[in-house]
Amino acid sequence: MSNPSHSSSRAERLDGLRAAMKRHGIDACIVPSSDPHLSEYLPRRWQGREWLSGFTGSVGTFILGADFAGVWTDGRYWTQAETELAGSGIALMKIPSGASLLHIDWLAQNMAPGQTVAVDARVLGLAVARLLGEALAARGILLRTDIDLLDEIWSDRPGLPLEPLYEHAAPHAALSRADKLAATRAAMTALGAERHFISTLDDIAYLFNLRGADVSFNPVFVAHALVEQDRATLFLAEGKASSELQARLLEDGVRLAPYAAAADALGALPPASSLLVDPRRITAGMRCAVAEGVKVIEAINPTTFAKSRKTDAEAAHVRATMEQDGAALCEFFAWLEAELANPQRAPLTELAIDTRITAARARRPHFVSPSFGTIAGFNANGAIMHYRASAASHAVIEGDGLLLIDSGGQYLGGTTDITRVVPVGRITDAHKRDFTLVLKGMMALSSAQFPRGTRSPLLDAIARAPIWAAGLDYGHGTGHGVGYFMNVHEGPQVISPSAAPDPHTAMEPGMITSIEPGIYKPGRWGIRIENLVLAVPAGDGQPGEFGEFLRFETLTLCPIDTRCLDLSLLHPHELEWLNAYHAQVRERLLPHVDGAARAWLTLRTRAV
Amino acid sequence: MSNPSHSSSRAERLDGLRAAMKRHGIDACIVPSSDPHLSEYLPRRWQGREWLSGFTGSVGTFILGADFAGVWTDGRYWTQAETELAGSGIALMKIPSGASLLHIDWLAQNMAPGQTVAVDARVLGLAVARLLGEALAARGILLRTDIDLLDEIWSDRPGLPLEPLYEHAAPHAALSRADKLAATRAAMTALGAERHFISTLDDIAYLFNLRGADVSFNPVFVAHALVEQDRATLFLAEGKASSELQARLLEDGVRLAPYAAAADALGALPPASSLLVDPRRITAGMRCAVAEGVKVIEAINPTTFAKSRKTDAEAAHVRATMEQDGAALCEFFAWLEAELANPQRAPLTELAIDTRITAARARRPHFVSPSFGTIAGFNANGAIMHYRASAASHAVIEGDGLLLIDSGGQYLGGTTDITRVVPVGRITDAHKRDFTLVLKGMMALSSAQFPRGTRSPLLDAIARAPIWAAGLDYGHGTGHGVGYFMNVHEGPQVISPSAAPDPHTAMEPGMITSIEPGIYKPGRWGIRIENLVLAVPAGDGQPGEFGEFLRFETLTLCPIDTRCLDLSLLHPHELEWLNAYHAQVRERLLPHVDGAARAWLTLRTRAV
Repeated sequence: MSNPSHSSSRAERLDGLRAAMKRHGIDACIVPSSDPHLSEYLPRRWQGREWLSGFTGSVGTFILGADFAGVWTDGRYWTQAETELAGSGIALMKIPSGASLLHIDWLAQNMAPGQTVAVDARVLGLAVARLLGEALAARGILLRTDIDLLDEIWSDRPGLPLEPLYEHAAPHAALSRADKLAATRAAMTALGAERHFISTLDDIAYLFNLRGADVSFNPVFVAHALVEQDRATLFLAEGKASSELQARLLEDGVRLAPYAAAADALGALPPASSLLVDPRRITAGMRCAVAEGVKVIEAINPTTFAKSRKTDAEAAHVRATMEQDGAALCEFFAWLEAELANPQRAPLTELAIDTRITAARARRPHFVSPSFGTIAGFNANGAIMHYRASAASHAVIEGDGLLLIDSGGQYLGGTTDITRVVPVGRITDAHKRDFTLVLKGMMALSSAQFPRGTRSPLLDAIARAPIWAAGLDYGHGTGHGVGYFMNVHEGPQVISPSAAPDPHTAMEPGMITSIEPGIYKPGRWGIRIENLVLAVPAGDGQPGEFGEFLRFETLTLCPIDTRCLDLSLLHPHELEWLNAYHAQVRERLLPHVDGAARAWLTLRTRAV
Repeated sequence: MSNPSHSSSRAERLDGLRAAMKRHGIDACIVPSSDPHLSEYLPRRWQGREWLSGFTGSVGTFILGADFAGVWTDGRYWTQAETELAGSGIALMKIPSGASLLHIDWLAQNMAPGQTVAVDARVLGLAVARLLGEALAARGILLRTDIDLLDEIWSDRPGLPLEPLYEHAAPHAALSRADKLAATRAAMTALGAERHFISTLDDIAYLFNLRGADVSFNPVFVAHALVEQDRATLFLAEGKASSELQARLLEDGVRLAPYAAAADALGALPPASSLLVDPRRITAGMRCAVAEGVKVIEAINPTTFAKSRKTDAEAAHVRATMEQDGAALCEFFAWLEAELANPQRAPLTELAIDTRITAARARRPHFVSPSFGTIAGFNANGAIMHYRASAASHAVIEGDGLLLIDSGGQYLGGTTDITRVVPVGRITDAHKRDFTLVLKGMMALSSAQFPRGTRSPLLDAIARAPIWAAGLDYGHGTGHGVGYFMNVHEGPQVISPSAAPDPHTAMEPGMITSIEPGIYKPGRWGIRIENLVLAVPAGDGQPGEFGEFLRFETLTLCPIDTRCLDLSLLHPHELEWLNAYHAQVRERLLPHVDGAARAWLTLRTRAV
């Protein structure tokens, strides 16, 4: 991701914000890492938390008071935040696992009754806004949400992104826009709602079979959508849709309106009409914009469920995409292994990994972009969970140790996300032990079977148990949902101990989820092994005496480096799983590779 | 448990309640299985749900409307409820796993705005009352909680139980009453509360080192308690405490007051004073009784945490108790196996099991009573999860199959709970497969290690995974907390997928929990294998790089019948666990048994 503008210093910006707070009588200001669409990756216009604090991690909340400045972030980012915040006077506030709203408790405890806290409702999730409001009200602290202090002080604030839209077309778009709209309207009717307002960009891109390039890595575009019974409206910055595209949208009853008109449209809804919104997927600002008298029905966006459950046709495209992605990885790893074996090589940096792996993918059909910033971390850098090498800071890969590479691609026929760890030079028994434990965790969950509808957070311990058994653990979830040519992180399923196992987290057939346990030894090495899996009916697919069961079909096709194994730690059934996986990888990738990549594939899929 | 009075017919009682509802303008009446202390086992006075509906299960909610009658209960009781409700016109409303408040949804959906629902606040938990109130208010349905219709129609309603109190004394009571009161007051102070009101009977029995016999199986007594800074008050029916005991209580600043005075005492609290209550552990009625102006602080009862974490001295008593309990079981199983091998035996019934097993325990030192009603279920009866043979309905154990025996004892030095399954005649490969899968689940969790503070519901899948892998499951949680000469079910920890993994469910050192996976094939057989385990520090007990880890020390000492095993399903490390367990059982029980029991112990702990 690009760096923030450096036209003013961090200290000047904090002073500017404090001055603006003083003008408005505000005692503390919250700047979340959030946008009007509650996106994970933010268009630069909404990277205010980074612009103010200098902390570049993807998740974090900045709070500025008269005598206090702090960034709240979770364990993935502590090492990075310590570095980026050093000397700024901004405190790193560590969020332990499962306490994502800790900054609210802090405000409730540290602000005095009668003081005023400000946050811009236009970038604040409705569900969070409610918790914040209750916590502050209980202590007599006032909350202002109608003011955007950033706008007052950020003179060169970027505008709306203006990248053009394009259609996600057949055959890769397996369902038509008309069919998706019809299914969404049926779900609205079942919930008793005439209209449905959507702000989340992946829901909108899915529903309208459109894609864009407004944020890094996610093929989405900045818009809101209002779905009515006989028509739908996309609220977009002008000029993003060609006239041809506009005409095709109109055929499906979809018209365009200015981006800024979304709130007004909600304000103009007729009284006694009914509107469906998802409280976790719209902002407090948009909820407030709804006209008085409208019956607001709260439920998860129907598209969130629909897009999480890939159709058979989508799954078939993903399988084909995985063969291309795996073949690209064979080319990359064959090159990497030859480089590492060459004593005369030019210095090999973590940055070069990103360039090479993306180039290998880009030669494959239907490739669009990386699905996130490649993480290539050697030794200590591998232990920084969301490490990303930059031009200013990256390691040269030399000497001995482990190299962790987490990367993925956006293809018209699916989204990939894979982590592998390879040995560099000589590795130790301690490296091998940790690698094998992580693999045991990945295999345990990959080969699990469970009742359909099991709430996905409850599956987490299955991957963690073999790692816990050695007195080790990892500070992130085991798996996240993955979109179909869409965000590499999507819900509603999530295999994480910090997620509440609510009914909407149930694992259902067609869901694609990562399985990615890890072990991180700060200052020494990091290991993570990640495959994507598809939830499919177990056995013959017929419900048995105990109902329907699901299992995971492993989608990702790429060797797991057996040179890193401590075979004495593997049970016979685990060895069987690994050898069967490698046999499948070899069989399915061989038709797509030749030369050095083919030789590497054959070598690295040998049975152990 | 005793049967309800049959002085009137079920139809007459329902007619009587409908007439009372009509007199008061009530359209639907809720009768929960609950008492003023939110107990699991109810004194007969509060068994109104059973008296009205005839359903004798321990958990269920009865709702009567003008044209509807239904009992909501969970999967453990569906088979039993179908039988008991047959022909009554009362519908069985099945509660799926994790939906314990389904009856509230039903009321919200089936009552009309303006109609009135009644429930007695004096037996309704505060947390549930709030959910009920919100759900009904959202639909414009009225709620009356100030009326006890049962009292109007139940002419021979039992009074308060009057069993005498006694002290739980040293050495078995490892902490003094004064120390426990001091620790509770320290916890109150930390929460900012001057006073603390307690209604839950096990919390009260723990805090005051007192025991009683007011309900079946739990050695508790009916009381409320108010803890203040310089004194404490026990609200009790008159005549329960001897004058000697009263004098000893007074030495610790504990005085007695009439049971009915508890609500008045809350109403007489000074304005601006502070009171700690646990919203899940007091009734809505008691909450309403608190005087206006009192600052009510809500948190889990400090005693609930304190009693869940057994001290080292308590754990040592439990280990000694387990040796006595295991020795009693050896005597019982030696007798049972001899009986089953005797072709000339008199008919052996499920009822005889209860008699014999209780008699064996009763010969052991410090035995007080069974800790719950023995479950002895042969073949199809074993598949009824909370089956209890009765004089009216029980099977003769003859022919071939599996006999499930779930039993436990209350001893001054601990509470036991164990399930074993033994073969009768010839058993099949299918029996052995299911038995082995259940054992695999039990061993997986028994040998697990996990970070201190892991929320206990998240451990459930570790036991379930080997059973899920075969397309099987069980409709109950994997484990419950167990008291120390106290209730056989206690919190706050609970290893169950239907429990929310809230922070207070964290597994901590000293907690005793059951591990009891199962497989139930309705109409054929039921298998459950249950041990109690103690959470202890893993390894050398020192925090490592990844913090503190816990493991489980298995407390229960009794052979697991290896004749039921399919050895081909066990991995080498599982066989190792089983053989090591049996070696320990043999070593620790041999000093406590002789004769046939000794021979049986030696035979049934042979390595496989």
